[in-house]
Amino acid sequence: MARYSPGPFTAGDLIDRFGGQLLHGERSLALSRLAPLESAAPGELSFLSAARHRRDGEATRASLVIVSVALVDALPAPTARIVTPDPYAYYAAVSRWLASRQQPAEPAQRVHPSALIDPSASVDPTAIIGPGCVIEADSVVGAGARIGAQVVIGEGARVGADTRLFARVVIYPDCEIGRRGIVHAGTVIGADGFGFAREAHGWAKIAQLGRVIVGDDVEIGANCTLDRGALDDTVIGNGCKLDNQIQVGHNVRIGEHTAIAGCVGIAGSAVIGARCMIGGGAGILGHLSICDDAVISAMSLVTRSISRPGLHTGVFPLMPNADWERAAVTLKHLPALRDRIRRLEQRLPIDAADSPAPVPGVDAPSNDPKESS
Amino acid sequence: MARYSPGPFTAGDLIDRFGGQLLHGERSLALSRLAPLESAAPGELSFLSAARHRRDGEATRASLVIVSVALVDALPAPTARIVTPDPYAYYAAVSRWLASRQQPAEPAQRVHPSALIDPSASVDPTAIIGPGCVIEADSVVGAGARIGAQVVIGEGARVGADTRLFARVVIYPDCEIGRRGIVHAGTVIGADGFGFAREAHGWAKIAQLGRVIVGDDVEIGANCTLDRGALDDTVIGNGCKLDNQIQVGHNVRIGEHTAIAGCVGIAGSAVIGARCMIGGGAGILGHLSICDDAVISAMSLVTRSISRPGLHTGVFPLMPNADWERAAVTLKHLPALRDRIRRLEQRLPIDAADSPAPVPGVDAPSNDPKESS
Amino acid sequence: MARYSPGPFTAGDLIDRFGGQLLHGERSLALSRLAPLESAAPGELSFLSAARHRRDGEATRASLVIVSVALVDALPAPTARIVTPDPYAYYAAVSRWLASRQQPAEPAQRVHPSALIDPSASVDPTAIIGPGCVIEADSVVGAGARIGAQVVIGEGARVGADTRLFARVVIYPDCEIGRRGIVHAGTVIGADGFGFAREAHGWAKIAQLGRVIVGDDVEIGANCTLDRGALDDTVIGNGCKLDNQIQVGHNVRIGEHTAIAGCVGIAGSAVIGARCMIGGGAGILGHLSICDDAVISAMSLVTRSISRPGLHTGVFPLMPNADWERAAVTLKHLPALRDRIRRLEQRLPIDAADSPAPVPGVDAPSNDPKESS
Repeated sequence: MARYSPGPFTAGDLIDRFGGQLLHGERSLALSRLAPLESAAPGELSFLSAARHRRDGEATRASLVIVSVALVDALPAPTARIVTPDPYAYYAAVSRWLASRQQPAEPAQRVHPSALIDPSASVDPTAIIGPGCVIEADSVVGAGARIGAQVVIGEGARVGADTRLFARVVIYPDCEIGRRGIVHAGTVIGADGFGFAREAHGWAKIAQLGRVIVGDDVEIGANCTLDRGALDDTVIGNGCKLDNQIQVGHNVRIGEHTAIAGCVGIAGSAVIGARCMIGGGAGILGHLSICDDAVISAMSLVTRSISRPGLHTGVFPLMPNADWERAAVTLKHLPALRDRIRRLEQRLPIDAADSPAPVPGVDAPSNDPKESS
Repeated sequence: MARYSPGPFTAGDLIDRFGGQLLHGERSLALSRLAPLESAAPGELSFLSAARHRRDGEATRASLVIVSVALVDALPAPTARIVTPDPYAYYAAVSRWLASRQQPAEPAQRVHPSALIDPSASVDPTAIIGPGCVIEADSVVGAGARIGAQVVIGEGARVGADTRLFARVVIYPDCEIGRRGIVHAGTVIGADGFGFAREAHGWAKIAQLGRVIVGDDVEIGANCTLDRGALDDTVIGNGCKLDNQIQVGHNVRIGEHTAIAGCVGIAGSAVIGARCMIGGGAGILGHLSICDDAVISAMSLVTRSISRPGLHTGVFPLMPNADWERAAVTLKHLPALRDRIRRLEQRLPIDAADSPAPVPGVDAPSNDPKESS
Repeated sequence: MARYSPGPFTAGDLIDRFGGQLLHGERSLALSRLAPLESAAPGELSFLSAARHRRDGEATRASLVIVSVALVDALPAPTARIVTPDPYAYYAAVSRWLASRQQPAEPAQRVHPSALIDPSASVDPTAIIGPGCVIEADSVVGAGARIGAQVVIGEGARVGADTRLFARVVIYPDCEIGRRGIVHAGTVIGADGFGFAREAHGWAKIAQLGRVIVGDDVEIGANCTLDRGALDDTVIGNGCKLDNQIQVGHNVRIGEHTAIAGCVGIAGSAVIGARCMIGGGAGILGHLSICDDAVISAMSLVTRSISRPGLHTGVFPLMPNADWERAAVTLKHLPALRDRIRRLEQRLPIDAADSPAPVPGVDAPSNDPKESS
């Protein structure tokens, strides 16, 4: 069984499928698996895509390395190589091909006998439905979809063609995911958004009547939670890539090809543009808007709309704890320190030649953080 | 099938159930669904509850708007309206009513044939048990409870009347949730609290012998984890509302009607008061106490007990990354900057008329962060 | 049925199993359960392990207290006591013994009839397999393992002897967990690491061909996600203890006996040493290395390698929101304030006797945060 070992392949297999120029090696060169440069053994394939890995390239024992023209001299002379413009993308394509060779064969029965499928559900005959699945009334599972063990697809939900749901994914009623998607185990799509109205003593629930609509070519990691909208829908654009443990609040809208690292929390009604990158553990408050191509650093909190692309950061620097205690205590008195500087400046003899130019926003500081940045 | 579309209803339906004064419209006015002001189409219902949405009100095409007296002039003149003191609460009530109209009919069999129920479990005949559930010995499921697909209710656990558990919720043995609760998919109640004793080489497990006790009218989001206590119980008060991905450590106690946004982490033995609001991604260290009516900002870390109600914040402000690098590097030297200011003050000529009043806590700074605030 | 109440036991039971010196009480002293000092009732057992709990000891009504020589006088005179060098470890051992007495009896059938086990899977005859489990081809479940309800063990995965998996754990193909492990409900081991290559318009998936390898004596909390490696494996060392909701990125390596509190996120290829302690909600960026015995405070972000053991912190201190707004606004201007201090120092009359010694790193500040700490 081809497990963890995709089975032997050759240099010729690679250039036939993925192109590139083969040098210092024959098409028949046999390879067993992909490995990192620094740990690859003879008979294994690797790739060199960044200048900072030169040294790993020079020392590699891999039998064949995917490399760009610029770094082709960073390999041992006898090492076979495939020269290609974008070695990282080439590696990505090879990885997907090797993964497909490791896929378990399609099961004898496309629909596992233990799956519970409502008669009114529409499950394409080419879909694969795993053990213990629950597929509720009026739901739709598209052609070539692969539904893992114990997945729950709620009433009226729709799973697009060629989409893969891993074990235990839960899709609440009426939610939709498009084509060629991947959703990893434990993710919940369509639970109620967090909506409550204040009462005299406590909170009254606001039923969440919207849905979650996930586009095509979206990958969502494990144990994520994407909430259904209050009235309108929560929308994830085509091509988005979400890591694990991400929380997407109700009525969030995320643009195409945005990538979000693990543990990010996005509050309700935030709108995120296309091609953004959100670092791990970052937070995004609600009812704001982030422009296209913005990049948010890990564990940074976005509290206001961002209209400029580029990298934004808000993180307290890490330091030895004793230093941190001193810095933290002084931080609380920062406004008072600024006042003391101002008073010192007022008390020094004034000389036009050397009085510092007033610093905007500092010499007449406002206490409104919203005016800054 | 009434899916995503609650079926037609009329203005009369609303005032009969929820009160208010109907103006500029007839009882027979037909409505199809609730929608936001800015996107509502003719035939749809909306609400206007905040002055900041005036403009949306003025432009709305909704056929009927729930509104307060104060904002009644913010609607187009011909628009039908229901005038009521609290439009937001009215909207919340309407949403719950519409949701109930969309509910799937009760299944033919209250207990799905694939559910595994121990003979000693006590399941009320009015409870609905979904496919694949595992209900263990001596557990109790109350009247009108709705247990979703694949829920696991452990030995001796108790689920109160009218409580709803969505798919895949896991309740560990002996834990209890009260009446009229809602727990969303993937949440785990009663896993072991994180308790270990240091050994010479490593950690010895401390078995967690307590339970989790959740009160009445509590709503818990998806993929939350509430740990059982070490000896005593972990307790969630009546009326609490928890969003998704929240971690509640062992022996935490949370007071009534406290609302907690997504991704919050609460460490063991923290005590949180009633009617608190904890912002998304915030952290609360253990063995401390937060008073009633406190509000914690998103992604802020509570490190000491809080005895004053009101809003508390501890977040590094977001800025363009180049600015952040400069601010972060200077932050480490903040105590040294304070010392330089002090030395400057000492070196200036002293004039009683203009020497600044000593600033408490700054002019005789302590290095003990615990003395501040 | 011994539920939440481990059944009566005696002082003699304890000293026979766990040692210690029994004073002021007979072997036959009957006890019903463990309780905290402050709430223990007569007939209950408690422990006193830290000087800060003296007062609780003096006031306790517990019938028997586990205590050290140093604190033996902190108990009421007539209270029976077991004197032992490490009361906390003694308590831990007693807790585990009491928990084992509460364990449900082994089920009549070791393998639940509803479990789906591939014929090629190797399940030890002494293993217990719960309802609804899915155990795929070529996987291995070791002697004495206890697999909870609805667990999914993927193709080729291996679960070691005496390891316990609670409900709904998902182990992806080829991943391994060693012996005597505990994995709490909802955890996902082996989902794809977050790997994508930039394309002209969007992201190309990098298949994750590595695995997750978890050592012996590891405990992992609920709803954690441990990602499989891209090429090499993600590795968790023997004796590690992980709390809930932790995200471990692909190719992370964690050394032995490291303890990680809830909600921590660890990015890909981070290497963490042995015996580290990572506080709740902390973040660790990728491709860095943390030495043995390092301690990271809660909600702190590690952005660079750490080579010194000891406590590291990076958290914005919590303060009343009005204070925070002022501090946050001034923070953005911190570099400008530093410049103003420097200009003041330049303008003051220079007197060698009192000019401050240059402060390293401050008087010639660099704008490179990487030079600090």
